[in-house]
Amino acid sequence: MKRSERLVAMTNYLINHPRRLVSLPFFSEQYDAAKSSISEDLDIVDQMFKAQGIGKLETVAGAAGGVKYIPLYSNENSEQFINELCNRLEDPARILPGGYLFMSDLLGDPELMRNLGKIFATAFADKEIDYIVTVATKGIPLAYATANILNVPVIIVRRDPKVTEGSTVSINYVSGSSRKIQTMVLSKRSLPEGSNVCIIDDFMKAGGTITGMQSLLKEFNANVQGIGVLAEAEDEEEERVVNDYISLIKIQDVDIKGNKIEALKGNYFDL
Amino acid sequence: MKRSERLVAMTNYLINHPRRLVSLPFFSEQYDAAKSSISEDLDIVDQMFKAQGIGKLETVAGAAGGVKYIPLYSNENSEQFINELCNRLEDPARILPGGYLFMSDLLGDPELMRNLGKIFATAFADKEIDYIVTVATKGIPLAYATANILNVPVIIVRRDPKVTEGSTVSINYVSGSSRKIQTMVLSKRSLPEGSNVCIIDDFMKAGGTITGMQSLLKEFNANVQGIGVLAEAEDEEEERVVNDYISLIKIQDVDIKGNKIEALKGNYFDL
Repeated sequence: MKRSERLVAMTNYLINHPRRLVSLPFFSEQYDAAKSSISEDLDIVDQMFKAQGIGKLETVAGAAGGVKYIPLYSNENSEQFINELCNRLEDPARILPGGYLFMSDLLGDPELMRNLGKIFATAFADKEIDYIVTVATKGIPLAYATANILNVPVIIVRRDPKVTEGSTVSINYVSGSSRKIQTMVLSKRSLPEGSNVCIIDDFMKAGGTITGMQSLLKEFNANVQGIGVLAEAEDEEEERVVNDYISLIKIQDVDIKGNKIEALKGNYFDL
Repeated sequence: MKRSERLVAMTNYLINHPRRLVSLPFFSEQYDAAKSSISEDLDIVDQMFKAQGIGKLETVAGAAGGVKYIPLYSNENSEQFINELCNRLEDPARILPGGYLFMSDLLGDPELMRNLGKIFATAFADKEIDYIVTVATKGIPLAYATANILNVPVIIVRRDPKVTEGSTVSINYVSGSSRKIQTMVLSKRSLPEGSNVCIIDDFMKAGGTITGMQSLLKEFNANVQGIGVLAEAEDEEEERVVNDYISLIKIQDVDIKGNKIEALKGNYFDL
Protein backbone atom coordinates (compact mmCIF):
# COMPACT_ATOMS: atom_id res chain seq x y z
CA MET A 1 0.00 0.00 0.00
CA LYS A 2 1.30 3.43 -0.92
CA ARG A 3 1.72 6.20 1.63
CA SER A 4 -1.13 8.19 0.11
CA GLU A 5 -3.46 5.21 0.46
CA ARG A 6 -2.28 4.44 3.98
CA LEU A 7 -2.96 8.02 5.04
CA VAL A 8 -6.59 7.80 3.90
CA ALA A 9 -7.08 4.46 5.66
CA MET A 10 -5.32 5.56 8.88
CA THR A 11 -7.19 8.87 9.06
CA ASN A 12 -10.46 7.01 8.71
CA TYR A 13 -9.47 4.45 11.34
CA LEU A 14 -8.36 7.04 13.87
CA ILE A 15 -11.45 9.24 13.43
CA ASN A 16 -13.66 6.21 13.99
CA HIS A 17 -11.76 5.12 17.12
CA PRO A 18 -11.32 8.25 19.23
CA ARG A 19 -9.34 7.94 22.47
CA ARG A 20 -8.52 4.32 21.73
CA LEU A 21 -4.88 3.25 22.09
CA VAL A 22 -3.76 1.82 18.75
CA SER A 23 -0.40 0.04 18.65
CA LEU A 24 2.07 0.72 15.85
CA PRO A 25 2.36 -3.01 15.05
CA PHE A 26 -1.40 -3.04 14.43
CA PHE A 27 -1.08 -0.38 11.72
CA SER A 28 2.10 -2.01 10.46
CA GLU A 29 0.36 -5.31 9.95
CA GLN A 30 -2.93 -3.86 8.73
CA TYR A 31 -1.28 -1.79 6.02
CA ASP A 32 1.76 -3.99 5.40
CA ALA A 33 4.32 -1.24 6.06
CA ALA A 34 7.46 -0.82 8.16
CA LYS A 35 7.05 0.70 11.61
CA SER A 36 9.26 3.62 10.59
CA SER A 37 6.92 4.44 7.69
CA ILE A 38 3.91 4.23 10.00
CA SER A 39 5.62 6.63 12.41
CA GLU A 40 6.15 9.13 9.63
CA ASP A 41 2.52 8.73 8.52
CA LEU A 42 1.33 9.42 12.05
CA ASP A 43 3.41 12.60 12.20
CA ILE A 44 1.67 13.86 9.07
CA VAL A 45 -1.76 12.97 10.49
CA ASP A 46 -0.94 14.66 13.79
CA GLN A 47 0.21 17.86 12.07
CA MET A 48 -2.88 18.01 9.88
CA PHE A 49 -5.29 17.32 12.76
CA LYS A 50 -3.67 20.17 14.68
CA ALA A 51 -3.69 22.48 11.65
CA GLN A 52 -7.38 21.76 11.02
CA GLY A 53 -8.21 22.36 14.70
CA ILE A 54 -9.81 18.95 15.12
CA GLY A 55 -7.50 17.40 17.69
CA LYS A 56 -4.15 15.71 18.04
CA LEU A 57 -2.46 12.35 18.29
CA GLU A 58 -1.14 11.42 21.72
CA THR A 59 1.81 9.07 21.78
CA VAL A 60 2.13 6.50 24.55
CA ALA A 61 5.70 5.17 24.79
CA GLY A 62 6.82 1.69 25.75
CA ALA A 63 6.05 -1.90 24.83
CA ALA A 64 2.31 -1.48 25.38
CA GLY A 65 2.42 1.90 23.68
CA GLY A 66 0.90 3.36 20.56
CA VAL A 67 -1.12 6.39 19.55
CA LYS A 68 -4.48 7.78 20.59
CA TYR A 69 -6.54 10.25 18.61
CA ILE A 70 -7.77 12.93 21.01
CA PRO A 71 -10.50 14.94 19.23
CA LEU A 72 -10.53 18.58 20.24
CA TYR A 73 -12.59 21.49 19.05
CA SER A 74 -10.55 24.65 19.07
CA ASN A 75 -11.77 27.55 21.17
CA GLU A 76 -11.99 29.76 18.10
CA ASN A 77 -14.17 27.23 16.24
CA SER A 78 -16.34 26.67 19.31
CA GLU A 79 -16.97 30.33 19.85
CA GLN A 80 -17.92 30.91 16.21
CA PHE A 81 -20.17 27.88 16.24
CA ILE A 82 -21.96 28.88 19.45
CA ASN A 83 -22.42 32.47 18.23
CA GLU A 84 -24.17 31.16 15.13
CA LEU A 85 -26.33 28.91 17.28
CA CYS A 86 -27.28 31.88 19.49
CA ASN A 87 -28.45 33.73 16.39
CA ARG A 88 -30.66 30.83 15.45
CA LEU A 89 -32.06 30.70 18.99
CA GLU A 90 -32.98 34.38 18.90
CA ASP A 91 -35.68 33.74 16.27
CA PRO A 92 -38.90 35.06 17.94
CA ALA A 93 -40.89 32.19 16.34
CA ARG A 94 -39.28 29.96 18.99
CA ILE A 95 -41.17 31.56 21.87
CA LEU A 96 -43.73 29.17 23.35
CA PRO A 97 -46.50 29.92 25.86
CA GLY A 98 -44.99 30.41 29.32
CA GLY A 99 -41.77 31.84 27.92
CA TYR A 100 -40.31 28.47 26.94
CA LEU A 101 -38.20 28.13 23.82
CA PHE A 102 -38.80 25.62 21.04
CA MET A 103 -35.47 23.83 20.52
CA SER A 104 -36.48 20.37 19.26
CA ASP A 105 -35.49 21.17 15.69
CA LEU A 106 -31.96 22.01 16.82
CA LEU A 107 -31.72 18.92 19.02
CA GLY A 108 -32.84 16.85 16.02
CA ASP A 109 -30.01 18.07 13.78
CA PRO A 110 -27.29 15.40 13.84
CA GLU A 111 -24.48 17.62 12.54
CA LEU A 112 -25.23 20.25 15.16
CA MET A 113 -25.26 17.54 17.83
CA ARG A 114 -21.91 16.19 16.58
CA ASN A 115 -20.32 19.61 16.92
CA LEU A 116 -21.79 20.23 20.37
CA GLY A 117 -20.55 16.79 21.41
CA LYS A 118 -17.05 17.79 20.30
CA ILE A 119 -17.23 20.99 22.34
CA PHE A 120 -18.40 19.15 25.49
CA ALA A 121 -15.75 16.46 24.94
CA THR A 122 -13.11 19.17 24.68
CA ALA A 123 -14.39 20.82 27.86
CA PHE A 124 -14.12 17.53 29.77
CA ALA A 125 -11.05 16.16 27.93
CA ASP A 126 -8.84 16.18 31.05
CA LYS A 127 -11.35 14.56 33.39
CA GLU A 128 -11.41 10.88 34.19
CA ILE A 129 -14.82 9.86 32.87
CA ASP A 130 -16.23 6.30 32.69
CA TYR A 131 -19.84 7.12 31.76
CA ILE A 132 -21.96 9.95 30.41
CA VAL A 133 -25.24 10.24 32.33
CA THR A 134 -28.30 12.05 31.04
CA VAL A 135 -32.02 12.08 31.69
CA ALA A 136 -34.69 11.17 29.13
CA THR A 137 -35.53 12.62 26.63
CA LYS A 138 -33.96 15.78 25.30
CA GLY A 139 -30.51 15.31 26.77
CA ILE A 140 -30.01 11.99 24.99
CA PRO A 141 -28.63 13.18 21.62
CA LEU A 142 -26.16 15.52 23.35
CA ALA A 143 -25.08 12.73 25.67
CA TYR A 144 -24.41 10.33 22.78
CA ALA A 145 -22.60 12.98 20.75
CA THR A 146 -20.29 13.61 23.71
CA ALA A 147 -19.88 9.90 24.44
CA ASN A 148 -18.99 9.26 20.79
CA ILE A 149 -15.96 11.50 21.16
CA LEU A 150 -14.98 10.50 24.70
CA ASN A 151 -15.48 6.84 23.77
CA VAL A 152 -17.47 5.92 26.89
CA PRO A 153 -20.98 4.45 27.34
CA VAL A 154 -24.15 6.44 27.97
CA ILE A 155 -26.47 5.81 30.92
CA ILE A 156 -30.03 7.13 30.65
CA VAL A 157 -31.97 8.08 33.76
CA ARG A 158 -35.71 7.71 33.25
CA ARG A 159 -38.78 9.37 34.68
CA ASP A 160 -40.64 6.07 34.97
CA PRO A 161 -39.47 2.49 35.50
CA LYS A 162 -39.82 0.10 32.56
CA VAL A 163 -39.97 -3.68 32.61
CA THR A 164 -37.06 -3.92 30.18
CA GLU A 165 -34.71 -2.21 32.62
CA GLY A 166 -34.82 -4.87 35.32
CA SER A 167 -34.67 -3.75 38.94
CA THR A 168 -34.14 -0.04 39.45
CA VAL A 169 -33.14 2.49 42.08
CA SER A 170 -35.49 5.45 42.31
CA ILE A 171 -35.51 8.82 44.05
CA ASN A 172 -37.94 11.68 44.38
CA TYR A 173 -36.92 15.26 43.81
CA VAL A 174 -38.51 18.68 43.48
CA SER A 175 -38.42 20.14 40.00
CA GLY A 176 -37.29 23.75 40.06
CA SER A 177 -39.51 25.08 37.30
CA SER A 178 -42.77 23.31 38.05
CA ARG A 179 -42.14 22.82 41.80
CA LYS A 180 -43.70 19.39 41.56
CA ILE A 181 -42.36 16.27 43.19
CA GLN A 182 -40.99 14.06 40.46
CA THR A 183 -39.39 10.64 40.28
CA MET A 184 -36.20 9.47 38.62
CA VAL A 185 -35.14 5.89 38.16
CA LEU A 186 -31.95 4.20 37.06
CA SER A 187 -31.57 0.54 36.24
CA LYS A 188 -29.51 -1.12 38.98
CA ARG A 189 -27.27 -3.02 36.66
CA SER A 190 -26.57 -0.15 34.31
CA LEU A 191 -23.98 1.67 36.44
CA PRO A 192 -21.20 -0.09 38.40
CA GLU A 193 -20.55 1.20 41.95
CA GLY A 194 -18.02 4.03 42.27
CA SER A 195 -17.92 5.04 38.60
CA ASN A 196 -16.69 8.42 37.38
CA VAL A 197 -19.48 10.12 35.51
CA CYS A 198 -20.21 13.29 33.58
CA ILE A 199 -23.77 14.66 33.51
CA ILE A 200 -24.98 16.12 30.21
CA ASP A 201 -28.37 17.79 29.69
CA ASP A 202 -30.01 20.19 27.29
CA PHE A 203 -31.38 22.85 29.59
CA MET A 204 -31.00 24.09 33.15
CA LYS A 205 -33.04 26.64 35.03
CA ALA A 206 -32.85 26.40 38.82
CA GLY A 207 -31.12 23.05 38.43
CA GLY A 208 -33.67 20.76 40.11
CA THR A 209 -33.23 18.01 37.53
CA ILE A 210 -29.45 18.07 37.80
CA THR A 211 -29.67 18.00 41.60
CA GLY A 212 -32.03 15.05 41.28
CA MET A 213 -29.52 13.23 39.10
CA GLN A 214 -26.77 13.96 41.60
CA SER A 215 -28.85 12.42 44.41
CA LEU A 216 -29.65 9.38 42.31
CA LEU A 217 -25.99 8.97 41.36
CA LYS A 218 -25.03 9.14 45.03
CA GLU A 219 -27.02 5.91 45.49
CA PHE A 220 -24.52 4.31 43.10
CA ASN A 221 -21.54 5.94 44.86
CA ALA A 222 -20.70 7.61 41.57
CA ASN A 223 -18.27 10.54 41.37
CA VAL A 224 -19.65 13.39 39.31
CA GLN A 225 -16.58 14.68 37.46
CA GLY A 226 -18.38 17.28 35.42
CA ILE A 227 -21.75 18.77 34.50
CA GLY A 228 -22.45 20.19 31.07
CA VAL A 229 -25.65 21.84 29.84
CA LEU A 230 -26.33 23.19 26.38
CA ALA A 231 -28.37 26.18 27.59
CA GLU A 232 -28.96 27.78 30.94
CA ALA A 233 -31.59 30.33 31.85
CA GLU A 234 -32.33 32.10 35.06
CA ASP A 235 -35.35 31.05 37.04
CA GLU A 236 -37.18 34.15 38.21
CA GLU A 237 -38.63 32.46 41.24
CA GLU A 238 -35.87 30.23 42.43
CA GLU A 239 -32.17 30.47 42.99
CA ARG A 240 -29.79 28.16 41.19
CA VAL A 241 -28.95 25.08 43.27
CA VAL A 242 -26.12 23.80 41.07
CA ASN A 243 -22.86 25.72 40.96
CA ASP A 244 -20.07 23.81 39.33
CA TYR A 245 -21.20 23.33 35.73
CA ILE A 246 -20.40 24.30 32.17
CA SER A 247 -22.99 25.96 29.93
CA LEU A 248 -22.49 26.68 26.24
CA ILE A 249 -25.37 29.14 25.92
CA LYS A 250 -27.04 31.55 28.29
CA ILE A 251 -30.66 32.50 27.56
CA GLN A 252 -30.50 36.00 29.00
CA ASP A 253 -34.02 37.11 28.38
CA VAL A 254 -37.24 35.86 26.82
CA ASP A 255 -39.48 38.87 26.37
CA ILE A 256 -42.91 37.50 25.44
CA LYS A 257 -44.52 40.92 25.12
CA GLY A 258 -41.75 42.38 23.00
CA ASN A 259 -41.39 39.09 21.09
CA LYS A 260 -37.62 39.10 21.67
CA ILE A 261 -35.07 36.56 22.85
CA GLU A 262 -31.54 37.30 23.95
CA ALA A 263 -29.09 34.40 23.78
CA LEU A 264 -25.43 34.76 24.75
CA LYS A 265 -22.35 32.55 25.02
CA GLY A 266 -22.40 30.38 28.14
CA ASN A 267 -19.93 30.29 31.03
CA TYR A 268 -17.64 27.89 29.11
CA PHE A 269 -16.31 30.92 27.28
CA ASP A 270 -15.83 33.07 30.40
CA LEU A 271 -12.36 31.78 31.21
CA MET B 1 -0.06 21.81 1.05
CA LYS B 2 1.42 18.48 0.02
CA ARG B 3 -0.70 15.66 -1.36
CA SER B 4 -0.16 13.57 1.77
CA GLU B 5 -1.45 16.42 3.95
CA ARG B 6 -4.37 17.11 1.64
CA LEU B 7 -5.44 13.48 1.80
CA VAL B 8 -5.63 13.56 5.59
CA ALA B 9 -7.62 16.79 5.55
CA MET B 10 -9.97 15.68 2.76
CA THR B 11 -10.62 12.27 4.32
CA ASN B 12 -11.52 13.97 7.57
CA TYR B 13 -13.76 16.48 5.82
CA LEU B 14 -15.63 13.86 3.81
CA ILE B 15 -16.16 11.52 6.79
CA ASN B 16 -17.61 14.41 8.76
CA HIS B 17 -19.93 15.48 5.93
CA PRO B 18 -21.62 12.30 4.69
CA ARG B 19 -23.98 12.61 1.72
CA ARG B 20 -23.17 16.29 1.32
CA LEU B 21 -22.31 17.53 -2.16
CA VAL B 22 -18.86 19.14 -2.01
CA SER B 23 -17.72 21.08 -5.06
CA LEU B 24 -14.19 20.63 -6.42
CA PRO B 25 -13.54 24.39 -6.29
CA PHE B 26 -14.25 24.25 -2.54
CA PHE B 27 -11.47 21.71 -2.00
CA SER B 28 -9.27 23.55 -4.49
CA GLU B 29 -9.57 26.77 -2.57
CA GLN B 30 -9.48 25.19 0.89
CA TYR B 31 -6.25 23.32 0.22
CA ASP B 32 -4.76 25.67 -2.34
CA ALA B 33 -4.35 23.04 -5.07
CA ALA B 34 -5.21 22.70 -8.77
CA LYS B 35 -8.51 21.03 -9.63
CA SER B 36 -6.63 18.28 -11.46
CA SER B 37 -4.68 17.44 -8.28
CA ILE B 38 -7.89 17.43 -6.25
CA SER B 39 -9.43 15.02 -8.78
CA GLU B 40 -6.52 12.66 -8.39
CA ASP B 41 -6.76 12.91 -4.59
CA LEU B 42 -10.44 12.04 -4.72
CA ASP B 43 -9.69 8.98 -6.83
CA ILE B 44 -7.31 7.73 -4.15
CA VAL B 45 -9.86 8.40 -1.41
CA ASP B 46 -12.59 6.63 -3.38
CA GLN B 47 -10.43 3.55 -3.98
CA MET B 48 -9.42 3.32 -0.33
CA PHE B 49 -12.99 3.79 0.96
CA LYS B 50 -14.09 0.97 -1.32
CA ALA B 51 -11.15 -1.24 -0.33
CA GLN B 52 -11.88 -0.69 3.37
CA GLY B 53 -15.56 -1.47 2.84
CA ILE B 54 -16.69 1.86 4.32
CA GLY B 55 -18.39 3.41 1.30
CA LYS B 56 -17.64 5.27 -1.88
CA LEU B 57 -17.46 8.70 -3.44
CA GLU B 58 -20.25 9.57 -5.84
CA THR B 59 -19.41 12.07 -8.55
CA VAL B 60 -22.01 14.56 -9.72
CA ALA B 61 -21.07 16.07 -13.09
CA GLY B 62 -21.77 19.57 -14.34
CA ALA B 63 -21.34 23.15 -13.18
CA ALA B 64 -23.15 22.51 -9.89
CA GLY B 65 -21.35 19.19 -9.51
CA GLY B 66 -18.88 17.77 -7.07
CA VAL B 67 -18.48 14.68 -4.93
CA LYS B 68 -20.54 13.08 -2.19
CA TYR B 69 -19.27 10.58 0.33
CA ILE B 70 -21.81 7.75 0.58
CA PRO B 71 -20.99 5.68 3.67
CA LEU B 72 -21.77 1.99 3.22
CA TYR B 73 -21.22 -0.98 5.47
CA SER B 74 -20.38 -4.06 3.42
CA ASN B 75 -22.64 -7.08 3.74
CA GLU B 76 -19.74 -9.19 4.95
CA ASN B 77 -18.85 -6.72 7.71
CA SER B 78 -22.52 -6.35 8.70
CA GLU B 79 -23.06 -10.07 9.00
CA GLN B 80 -19.96 -10.58 11.11
CA PHE B 81 -20.90 -7.67 13.31
CA ILE B 82 -24.48 -8.87 13.85
CA ASN B 83 -23.33 -12.42 14.59
CA GLU B 84 -21.07 -11.10 17.35
CA LEU B 85 -23.94 -9.03 18.70
CA CYS B 86 -26.20 -12.12 18.73
CA ASN B 87 -23.61 -13.92 20.83
CA ARG B 88 -23.62 -11.08 23.33
CA LEU B 89 -27.43 -11.15 23.43
CA GLU B 90 -27.48 -14.86 24.19
CA ASP B 91 -25.95 -14.28 27.64
CA PRO B 92 -28.56 -15.80 30.04
CA ALA B 93 -27.89 -13.00 32.56
CA ARG B 94 -29.93 -10.78 30.22
CA ILE B 95 -33.20 -12.58 30.95
CA LEU B 96 -35.58 -10.37 32.95
CA PRO B 97 -38.85 -11.33 34.65
CA GLY B 98 -41.55 -11.86 32.02
CA GLY B 99 -39.07 -13.09 29.40
CA TYR B 100 -37.82 -9.62 28.51
CA LEU B 101 -34.19 -9.07 27.62
CA PHE B 102 -31.90 -6.50 29.22
CA MET B 103 -30.36 -4.53 26.35
CA SER B 104 -29.70 -1.09 27.84
CA ASP B 105 -25.96 -1.72 28.12
CA LEU B 106 -25.77 -2.42 24.38
CA LEU B 107 -27.91 0.60 23.52
CA GLY B 108 -25.58 2.72 25.67
CA ASP B 109 -22.45 1.73 23.74
CA PRO B 110 -21.71 4.53 21.26
CA GLU B 111 -19.40 2.50 19.00
CA LEU B 112 -21.99 -0.26 18.70
CA MET B 113 -24.64 2.35 17.90
CA ARG B 114 -22.38 3.91 15.25
CA ASN B 115 -22.00 0.56 13.51
CA LEU B 116 -25.71 -0.25 13.69
CA GLY B 117 -26.43 3.21 12.28
CA LYS B 118 -24.13 2.44 9.35
CA ILE B 119 -25.95 -0.84 8.69
CA PHE B 120 -29.39 0.83 8.76
CA ALA B 121 -28.10 3.66 6.57
CA THR B 122 -26.82 1.10 4.07
CA ALA B 123 -30.15 -0.72 4.12
CA PHE B 124 -32.01 2.51 3.34
CA ALA B 125 -29.32 4.09 1.13
CA ASP B 126 -31.47 4.07 -2.01
CA LYS B 127 -34.63 5.48 -0.41
CA GLU B 128 -35.59 9.12 -0.50
CA ILE B 129 -35.55 10.02 3.20
CA ASP B 130 -36.04 13.50 4.70
CA TYR B 131 -36.37 12.54 8.37
CA ILE B 132 -35.70 9.66 10.73
CA VAL B 133 -38.60 9.15 13.14
CA THR B 134 -38.35 7.23 16.40
CA VAL B 135 -40.23 6.99 19.67
CA ALA B 136 -38.78 7.85 23.09
CA THR B 137 -36.66 6.43 24.67
CA LYS B 138 -34.73 3.41 23.56
CA GLY B 139 -34.93 4.00 19.81
CA ILE B 140 -33.26 7.41 20.08
CA PRO B 141 -29.56 6.40 19.92
CA LEU B 142 -30.23 4.13 16.92
CA ALA B 143 -32.16 6.89 15.19
CA TYR B 144 -29.34 9.42 15.65
CA ALA B 145 -26.69 6.93 14.56
CA THR B 146 -28.64 6.31 11.34
CA ALA B 147 -29.37 10.01 10.85
CA ASN B 148 -25.69 10.83 11.30
CA ILE B 149 -24.87 8.73 8.24
CA LEU B 150 -27.91 9.65 6.13
CA ASN B 151 -27.39 13.32 7.04
CA VAL B 152 -31.05 14.02 7.88
CA PRO B 153 -32.74 15.30 11.06
CA VAL B 154 -34.31 13.14 13.76
CA ILE B 155 -37.92 13.54 14.94
CA ILE B 156 -38.81 12.07 18.33
CA VAL B 157 -42.37 10.92 19.02
CA ARG B 158 -43.17 11.11 22.73
CA ARG B 159 -45.50 9.26 25.07
CA ASP B 160 -46.56 12.46 26.81
CA PRO B 161 -46.82 16.06 25.66
CA LYS B 162 -44.31 18.52 27.08
CA VAL B 163 -44.59 22.28 27.33
CA THR B 164 -41.32 22.76 25.45
CA GLU B 165 -42.73 21.07 22.35
CA GLY B 166 -45.41 23.63 21.59
CA SER B 167 -48.72 22.41 20.20
CA THR B 168 -48.84 18.72 19.39
CA VAL B 169 -50.85 16.15 17.46
CA SER B 170 -51.72 13.08 19.49
CA ILE B 171 -53.20 9.65 18.77
CA ASN B 172 -54.20 6.65 20.85
CA TYR B 173 -53.12 3.15 19.96
CA VAL B 174 -53.20 -0.32 21.45
CA SER B 175 -49.84 -1.67 22.51
CA GLY B 176 -49.37 -5.22 21.33
CA SER B 177 -47.48 -6.56 24.30
CA SER B 178 -49.38 -4.96 27.17
CA ARG B 179 -52.71 -4.58 25.31
CA LYS B 180 -53.18 -1.23 26.95
CA ILE B 181 -54.38 1.90 25.24
CA GLN B 182 -51.45 4.25 24.96
CA THR B 183 -50.90 7.75 23.66
CA MET B 184 -48.30 9.14 21.27
CA VAL B 185 -47.68 12.79 20.56
CA LEU B 186 -45.63 14.67 18.02
CA SER B 187 -44.91 18.36 18.05
CA LYS B 188 -46.84 20.03 15.25
CA ARG B 189 -44.01 22.13 14.02
CA SER B 190 -41.41 19.37 14.06
CA LEU B 191 -42.43 17.62 10.83
CA PRO B 192 -43.42 19.45 7.62
CA GLU B 193 -46.46 18.08 5.72
CA GLY B 194 -45.77 15.36 3.16
CA SER B 195 -42.23 14.48 4.28
CA ASN B 196 -40.51 11.20 3.43
CA VAL B 197 -39.60 9.43 6.64
CA CYS B 198 -37.89 6.31 7.87
CA ILE B 199 -38.99 4.76 11.19
CA ILE B 200 -36.23 3.36 13.41
CA ASP B 201 -36.84 1.53 16.71
CA ASP B 202 -35.01 -0.84 19.00
CA PHE B 203 -37.51 -3.66 19.40
CA MET B 204 -40.66 -5.00 17.77
CA LYS B 205 -43.00 -7.72 18.95
CA ALA B 206 -46.50 -7.58 17.48
CA GLY B 207 -45.69 -4.15 16.12
CA GLY B 208 -48.26 -2.05 17.99
CA THR B 209 -45.83 0.80 18.57
CA ILE B 210 -44.78 0.93 14.93
CA THR B 211 -48.43 0.87 13.82
CA GLY B 212 -49.09 3.70 16.25
CA MET B 213 -46.26 5.70 14.72
CA GLN B 214 -47.62 5.05 11.24
CA SER B 215 -51.05 6.37 12.28
CA LEU B 216 -49.50 9.43 13.86
CA LEU B 217 -47.38 10.06 10.77
CA LYS B 218 -50.49 9.82 8.60
CA GLU B 219 -51.75 12.93 10.42
CA PHE B 220 -48.74 14.74 8.96
CA ASN B 221 -49.30 13.19 5.49
CA ALA B 222 -45.84 11.68 5.78
CA ASN B 223 -44.69 8.88 3.45
CA VAL B 224 -43.08 6.05 5.37
CA GLN B 225 -40.23 4.97 3.09
CA GLY B 226 -38.80 2.35 5.38
CA ILE B 227 -39.02 0.73 8.81
CA GLY B 228 -35.98 -0.62 10.61
CA VAL B 229 -35.83 -2.37 13.98
CA LEU B 230 -32.75 -3.63 15.76
CA ALA B 231 -34.44 -6.76 17.15
CA GLU B 232 -37.72 -8.49 16.49
CA ALA B 233 -39.35 -11.23 18.55
CA GLU B 234 -42.54 -13.12 18.07
CA ASP B 235 -45.49 -12.30 20.27
CA GLU B 236 -47.07 -15.51 21.47
CA GLU B 237 -50.49 -14.00 21.86
CA GLU B 238 -50.77 -11.68 18.93
CA GLU B 239 -50.00 -11.76 15.26
CA ARG B 240 -47.61 -9.28 13.74
CA VAL B 241 -49.40 -6.24 12.33
CA VAL B 242 -46.42 -4.75 10.50
CA ASN B 243 -45.12 -6.49 7.39
CA ASP B 244 -42.72 -4.39 5.41
CA TYR B 245 -39.76 -3.84 7.73
CA ILE B 246 -36.09 -4.65 8.17
CA SER B 247 -34.80 -6.35 11.30
CA LEU B 248 -31.13 -6.91 12.08
CA ILE B 249 -31.69 -9.50 14.82
CA LYS B 250 -34.39 -12.06 15.47
CA ILE B 251 -34.90 -13.17 19.08
CA GLN B 252 -36.01 -16.72 18.33
CA ASP B 253 -36.59 -17.99 21.80
CA VAL B 254 -36.29 -16.84 25.40
CA ASP B 255 -36.49 -19.95 27.55
CA ILE B 256 -36.83 -18.71 31.12
CA LYS B 257 -36.94 -22.20 32.65
CA GLY B 258 -33.94 -23.45 30.69
CA ASN B 259 -32.18 -20.09 31.14
CA LYS B 260 -31.43 -19.91 27.43
CA ILE B 261 -31.79 -17.28 24.71
CA GLU B 262 -31.59 -17.89 20.99
CA ALA B 263 -30.72 -14.86 18.85
CA LEU B 264 -30.34 -15.07 15.08
CA LYS B 265 -29.65 -12.73 12.19
CA GLY B 266 -32.71 -10.68 11.21
CA ASN B 267 -34.56 -10.56 7.91
CA TYR B 268 -32.10 -7.97 6.51
CA PHE B 269 -29.76 -10.88 5.80
CA ASP B 270 -32.43 -13.09 4.18
CA LEU B 271 -32.05 -11.68 0.69
